[in-house]
Amino acid sequence: MTLDTVKVGLIGAGRIGQAHAATLAYRAPGARLVAVADVVEQAARRCAEQFGIATATADYHEILADREITAVLICSGTDTHAQIIEEAARAGKHIFCEKPIALALASIDRALAAVEEAGVKLCIGFNRRFDANFQRIYRALRDGEIGRPEMLHITSRDPGPPPISYIKISGGIFLDMMIHDFDLARFLIGSEVEEVSAVGAVMVDPAIGEAGDLDTAIVVLRFANGVIGTIENSRRAAYGYDQRAEVLGSAGAVRVENNFPNTAIISDGTSVRRDLPLNFFMERYADAYASEMIAFIDAVARDGPVAVTGQDGRAPVVMALAARRSYDEHRPVLVSEIES
Amino acid sequence: MTLDTVKVGLIGAGRIGQAHAATLAYRAPGARLVAVADVVEQAARRCAEQFGIATATADYHEILADREITAVLICSGTDTHAQIIEEAARAGKHIFCEKPIALALASIDRALAAVEEAGVKLCIGFNRRFDANFQRIYRALRDGEIGRPEMLHITSRDPGPPPISYIKISGGIFLDMMIHDFDLARFLIGSEVEEVSAVGAVMVDPAIGEAGDLDTAIVVLRFANGVIGTIENSRRAAYGYDQRAEVLGSAGAVRVENNFPNTAIISDGTSVRRDLPLNFFMERYADAYASEMIAFIDAVARDGPVAVTGQDGRAPVVMALAARRSYDEHRPVLVSEIES
Amino acid sequence: MTLDTVKVGLIGAGRIGQAHAATLAYRAPGARLVAVADVVEQAARRCAEQFGIATATADYHEILADREITAVLICSGTDTHAQIIEEAARAGKHIFCEKPIALALASIDRALAAVEEAGVKLCIGFNRRFDANFQRIYRALRDGEIGRPEMLHITSRDPGPPPISYIKISGGIFLDMMIHDFDLARFLIGSEVEEVSAVGAVMVDPAIGEAGDLDTAIVVLRFANGVIGTIENSRRAAYGYDQRAEVLGSAGAVRVENNFPNTAIISDGTSVRRDLPLNFFMERYADAYASEMIAFIDAVARDGPVAVTGQDGRAPVVMALAARRSYDEHRPVLVSEIES
Amino acid sequence: MTLDTVKVGLIGAGRIGQAHAATLAYRAPGARLVAVADVVEQAARRCAEQFGIATATADYHEILADREITAVLICSGTDTHAQIIEEAARAGKHIFCEKPIALALASIDRALAAVEEAGVKLCIGFNRRFDANFQRIYRALRDGEIGRPEMLHITSRDPGPPPISYIKISGGIFLDMMIHDFDLARFLIGSEVEEVSAVGAVMVDPAIGEAGDLDTAIVVLRFANGVIGTIENSRRAAYGYDQRAEVLGSAGAVRVENNFPNTAIISDGTSVRRDLPLNFFMERYADAYASEMIAFIDAVARDGPVAVTGQDGRAPVVMALAARRSYDEHRPVLVSEIES
Repeated sequence: MTLDTVKVGLIGAGRIGQAHAATLAYRAPGARLVAVADVVEQAARRCAEQFGIATATADYHEILADREITAVLICSGTDTHAQIIEEAARAGKHIFCEKPIALALASIDRALAAVEEAGVKLCIGFNRRFDANFQRIYRALRDGEIGRPEMLHITSRDPGPPPISYIKISGGIFLDMMIHDFDLARFLIGSEVEEVSAVGAVMVDPAIGEAGDLDTAIVVLRFANGVIGTIENSRRAAYGYDQRAEVLGSAGAVRVENNFPNTAIISDGTSVRRDLPLNFFMERYADAYASEMIAFIDAVARDGPVAVTGQDGRAPVVMALAARRSYDEHRPVLVSEIES
Repeated sequence: MTLDTVKVGLIGAGRIGQAHAATLAYRAPGARLVAVADVVEQAARRCAEQFGIATATADYHEILADREITAVLICSGTDTHAQIIEEAARAGKHIFCEKPIALALASIDRALAAVEEAGVKLCIGFNRRFDANFQRIYRALRDGEIGRPEMLHITSRDPGPPPISYIKISGGIFLDMMIHDFDLARFLIGSEVEEVSAVGAVMVDPAIGEAGDLDTAIVVLRFANGVIGTIENSRRAAYGYDQRAEVLGSAGAVRVENNFPNTAIISDGTSVRRDLPLNFFMERYADAYASEMIAFIDAVARDGPVAVTGQDGRAPVVMALAARRSYDEHRPVLVSEIES
Repeated sequence: MTLDTVKVGLIGAGRIGQAHAATLAYRAPGARLVAVADVVEQAARRCAEQFGIATATADYHEILADREITAVLICSGTDTHAQIIEEAARAGKHIFCEKPIALALASIDRALAAVEEAGVKLCIGFNRRFDANFQRIYRALRDGEIGRPEMLHITSRDPGPPPISYIKISGGIFLDMMIHDFDLARFLIGSEVEEVSAVGAVMVDPAIGEAGDLDTAIVVLRFANGVIGTIENSRRAAYGYDQRAEVLGSAGAVRVENNFPNTAIISDGTSVRRDLPLNFFMERYADAYASEMIAFIDAVARDGPVAVTGQDGRAPVVMALAARRSYDEHRPVLVSEIES
Repeated sequence: MTLDTVKVGLIGAGRIGQAHAATLAYRAPGARLVAVADVVEQAARRCAEQFGIATATADYHEILADREITAVLICSGTDTHAQIIEEAARAGKHIFCEKPIALALASIDRALAAVEEAGVKLCIGFNRRFDANFQRIYRALRDGEIGRPEMLHITSRDPGPPPISYIKISGGIFLDMMIHDFDLARFLIGSEVEEVSAVGAVMVDPAIGEAGDLDTAIVVLRFANGVIGTIENSRRAAYGYDQRAEVLGSAGAVRVENNFPNTAIISDGTSVRRDLPLNFFMERYADAYASEMIAFIDAVARDGPVAVTGQDGRAPVVMALAARRSYDEHRPVLVSEIES
């Protein structure tokens, strides 16, 4: 069986949009990127030139109107995601959307309803699910290598904080950073989180606190299946991007360490050392970004299920809102409180 | 200057008492163990025989009455610690006491008051402070190798649960197990814990739950200096004794891994593997036990300060009580609430 | 400056030829693969189809005759390399040729003379020079991180032996396998090898011995700059592909370990283990193959020097011949003996 | 059964003699060190005082004459070993002797003959056999964990060279340093070495070369059972004492790494690093020294076989002489050539 080539439109030609364009250009023989839109038309044009995309536009509606295009990648600003999802769904496009869908549940729910009504596919860009390390934890749990899971710990630290301008609109550390870890927690444990309890602090930069956000946070999780766990985030690790996780199970434990640019160990009169880990996410998760895109194209081409559903995109937002409420009210918060 | 030999009496000839006896016999030239007491007289006699101790008795009062003895090691049952501390202090003995001093603050405070009044030294057996790994974290922080501390994580898992009979009288996981980690947290961060927040579960054995205890627990800590952290305990790790810690600082991070019986790595058609870590505490902390005893003897011989004070013995009990209250009341608990 | 696209012809559509085709198709924007030749025409056609190559042929002379093509990749059988290099050079093509150039020095020298006369570029496919690990050793030495080099050790083991049919024509372990390590040794130490001394054995399969070859070998190297070193090869490592190296210098040491598919560490009641290393060379050196091809295209496009010269292709063959003579005559052999 | 205490005399109160004294004093309940001799009487007295030894003398004959003493430890200068072994054997003492027995085979053979005639036990101090890491390789091979052994590599580097005065009388790198590795090779592989082939250089200090010795050496080994291997020595590793080994077998491989003072990993803006390995042999092999002494005492007390026989002491000397001859004559040398 030869599959038809999936014709794709890219909305948003920033860093992550370009990464997906590269995957489609070089690593996804089943797809062809035929149009790119960016509110900065110049950016759209440069992207089109670089990856040999036929059409560049400032108006993504042109992409939605193109009958040849069967799938769109939404890589524009977070505040536009939900709206574009709705429109793309109504236009009958299959959708890959970067996380988060939106910062407000009402927007998310409208978008998901539109997707449901249109019967199109929606895949959310939680790239870490496709990382070889976290996949290995997933398989260890799935295959019972460590028995039944009991505790989970996720460590997730950025090399340095984003600009304050970003923090002011990002929704804060739980929504812009820990959301990845909330998703990873659900993915690894395979159970919903029922309760969260957050502590946090401003340690990296007082300006972050003045913007109403935290830069250091720990959230304790209680899952429906009884597992308990922690996620910790810092917006600054002097040694770079730190992405680890471990699970204790009834018959053992599994943990994953950071990835490094090489395996060299250098010993001199001072220490036994190695180079710093891969830094930053575009490098660390390069393969994961490619894999998620290939999986999305595959789901579209074969009409199969997507790996990360709309509900998978919604749940971490709810968890983030619960975590923030827990921090604000200084008490454990049931995730169900957010829904009501 | 030649120091006088410190004559020591041992109260309690169980496993840990014997370990200290071995240290005094073989590795502490400045001390001589001259008497051993155990309620099971036979145990006292066997211990005396093994380590060449002159006197064995079932009644520790004989040791307290011996004018030649200047220091006693209290290694008897936890419920006897506070009482014997009081009596030993009144008898003018310097005291090394295994943790915890007692499960009730009132008893601890009476014991500490007696020590204060008598002007004797009291050192509490928090052996992990003397471990080379945790010492290295301590030095990294002291020397500013990773900047100012921001987050702490302690992982502490036993190979398997103790007998239910022990759990019924131990005070529970926070007092019998996590108490070591509470002490370690204070030691490493060098600041008092102001608030704790506990979650827990019974995952290992329902009988533990029936006895009113937990076997899996996570406690979030907030320190006076702003550091936040976690301690996690499980009463069962299939792979053995798991004792790790890490600190994130403003300029880096430090972490310590488990100790192993050898460095051999074996690769075959299945995996690249090594032997399990040292198991259990008598083996893992053998050097730490010896070091703490040698340090105590040294403090007595040179009339210097002890490494782990009575207050150091009290604080983790308060933290444990706060953790249990947090678990029971499902809310963050200020450590100061326990005092009132 | 925009560089013209380099038009490339591929000769030999086997496993390694396909790998280079993939690099040119997906990761080398400056090149276009326009023709592929393979004695098995069906193989050429399949390759052309897979990578969108315009022309497929059974006769590589068509490629040499194509005026549009400026560079050729010689990925055909080893016994054809030297002849095709000569012809391609005369046709004015820049040449990338898989190792080894030939098994006989006379053939190599004829090929190199043709290249010299034609003034074309010739790059030899010693891919390991482009590997991130070995590059890191190279940089450590270049930058003086470990002082002046003193000893080198290279460990290189295949997961399992090739078919006996291959061994019969490959030139044997020194020419088909250790040749990579001979090149790596020269590359890392930056000095010529003056003397080799070989020991070897047949341990894996008696049929290898019956074919006149060895499956286990150690060669001691003496470099012109005084460094001494070892290379060891086994045709079978039960745990997979083993590719390590280390250098001792006057101020320290550097070593590189294997690459693994993930960083997961799994602990259970039996061991602390990880998955086997990447296996086999197509996977382990995937990035290195791509980098060497991109570097070759870049050298052609910018008219710069190639990374691995014809002389770099010749020297390891001389070393291999010297190693075999050392084994046969059971004595150290000067590399210069081979030349005379 | 209660074993009689073994009364021991120590001959030579230098660093290693003191280490054995400490083991006997603190860790070997079945032995009592009753006399110590050293040509520097002051050294003997200090040692006696430190370890509570009753008798100190400048003349070891006093120890040999003492009827109460059943075992002697020969820790004096290498040039005295053989002579004292002979005398001690004639005096009916069981003997523990530091390596090497002597630098000349004739002396060794006279000593071994005396031991044989007297029917006393002779144990040679090849401490590495008792190290947990090398023991683990031994067990892996014994238990078939990696199949049948095929290749061995031993890396052995000192932190820095000994004084030139020592090098002048030590017999050179093969006899004073690599002798440990020759023994380890025989121990691990469980087969005699039939042929050696040595290369070497003077890289660390020209004065070592002027003294007729090398400071950097590689020896290739061929064992009777077909295994081939390498030993490499450097008299200087900037990062400290480096003691590693690995064996490739038909079903896998086993390797051991260095031991470190702690497991701490420190990451900052520059690197991910740990402290330097244990340095030097008194620290690295502290447990091995104690274990070998305890094993010797046990062999005497129970009248069992010693772990390292006189023949085990002789074979590495022969290997060292063969290695030197190989280096001098620039050819592989059969170990049997040394005997004739």
